[in-house]
Amino acid sequence: MSAERGISATMTPAGKTPRTDRGRKTLRLLLDAAAAEFGEKGFHESSVVSITQRAGVALGSFYTYFDSKDSLFRALVRDMSAQVRRNVGPVMAAEPDRLEGERKGLARFLEFVREHKELYRIIDEAEFVDPPSYRAHYEDTVSGYLASLKDAAAKGQLREDVDEVHAWAIVGMNVFLGLRYGVMGEDRDVTDVASIAADMLTNGLKR
Amino acid sequence: MSAERGISATMTPAGKTPRTDRGRKTLRLLLDAAAAEFGEKGFHESSVVSITQRAGVALGSFYTYFDSKDSLFRALVRDMSAQVRRNVGPVMAAEPDRLEGERKGLARFLEFVREHKELYRIIDEAEFVDPPSYRAHYEDTVSGYLASLKDAAAKGQLREDVDEVHAWAIVGMNVFLGLRYGVMGEDRDVTDVASIAADMLTNGLKR
Repeated sequence: MSAERGISATMTPAGKTPRTDRGRKTLRLLLDAAAAEFGEKGFHESSVVSITQRAGVALGSFYTYFDSKDSLFRALVRDMSAQVRRNVGPVMAAEPDRLEGERKGLARFLEFVREHKELYRIIDEAEFVDPPSYRAHYEDTVSGYLASLKDAAAKGQLREDVDEVHAWAIVGMNVFLGLRYGVMGEDRDVTDVASIAADMLTNGLKR
Repeated sequence: MSAERGISATMTPAGKTPRTDRGRKTLRLLLDAAAAEFGEKGFHESSVVSITQRAGVALGSFYTYFDSKDSLFRALVRDMSAQVRRNVGPVMAAEPDRLEGERKGLARFLEFVREHKELYRIIDEAEFVDPPSYRAHYEDTVSGYLASLKDAAAKGQLREDVDEVHAWAIVGMNVFLGLRYGVMGEDRDVTDVASIAADMLTNGLKR
């Protein structure tokens, strides 16, 4: 099982974490089917029956892991948020220099968005379907970013005064670059987009 | 009538632009009531009858300007998009230096968001209710930004290679700073937030 397809221990309501490989596989099938269904139809038009049919999983198995369509949606938002971190985090962490890591991580994020165009619709719909999940997704993303920026500042790779404001600004930048160059169009090379953005972050816009 | 409260010539479906002061006032009342109603209840729970009651406008007058709740929502997204530009644009343009204008413009934008917390919910819901309006809002915002960046680069105030990627990155940064420091919480001073972000844009994050 690749890192991207992993199952977090907290993916389903308490006490319902699968204990067997078969259980984990079933849960993965349900989450992937939910991503496809919610991404295509939106939350309100999606149904548990249709998701289980897509997944090839019995309706009874669904209720082993989830109480309702709502609890599946919440789990999916956590799962997609975790998938982004599992895909992008190691690429960033592999670079000794934080700003070079930013460039490579952004390029990987843009690729991930192109491979998972449903990501934006699902996270964005969480603002309406489950506001705490929406808020948690961004707060978790930003707090991870801020920790990594402070760590790099302590190593002398970034200015010393890195702040929560920088973390929100960079996350917003990356989200909008993903929207434009991942979801809306693929007319620019991801490495070019990432290089331009990372160079702005490194050196700024002044002449 | 202040700039903020203006009515654009293209605010309602073709042929329905008000020609009198009274008509403009009625349209303004309807748009403000719609912002309050959609911001509070969301699109699906909002109704034309309730919006006209909120506005103190007869139902018949509503249909002078709009065909439906959908056409009102579309007009409202254009109106809010234009209100942001009318509020922030002059503050930015008043500064001879573009990067100082960026700082002052961001501070004004954060204030505007605090005064109009419904802005995010309405624009974000457009992604689901009327995707072309959502896309147009950001494409128009970014194209205005890019024109202004290129203009400043031509004047020697910014690096020469300003690109659409920079414009999407800066708009994303500003949107997320508005989400965090305008909508989610007011725990930081807007001028501090704007100064940190503008300094990052000017000089970058390198040590």
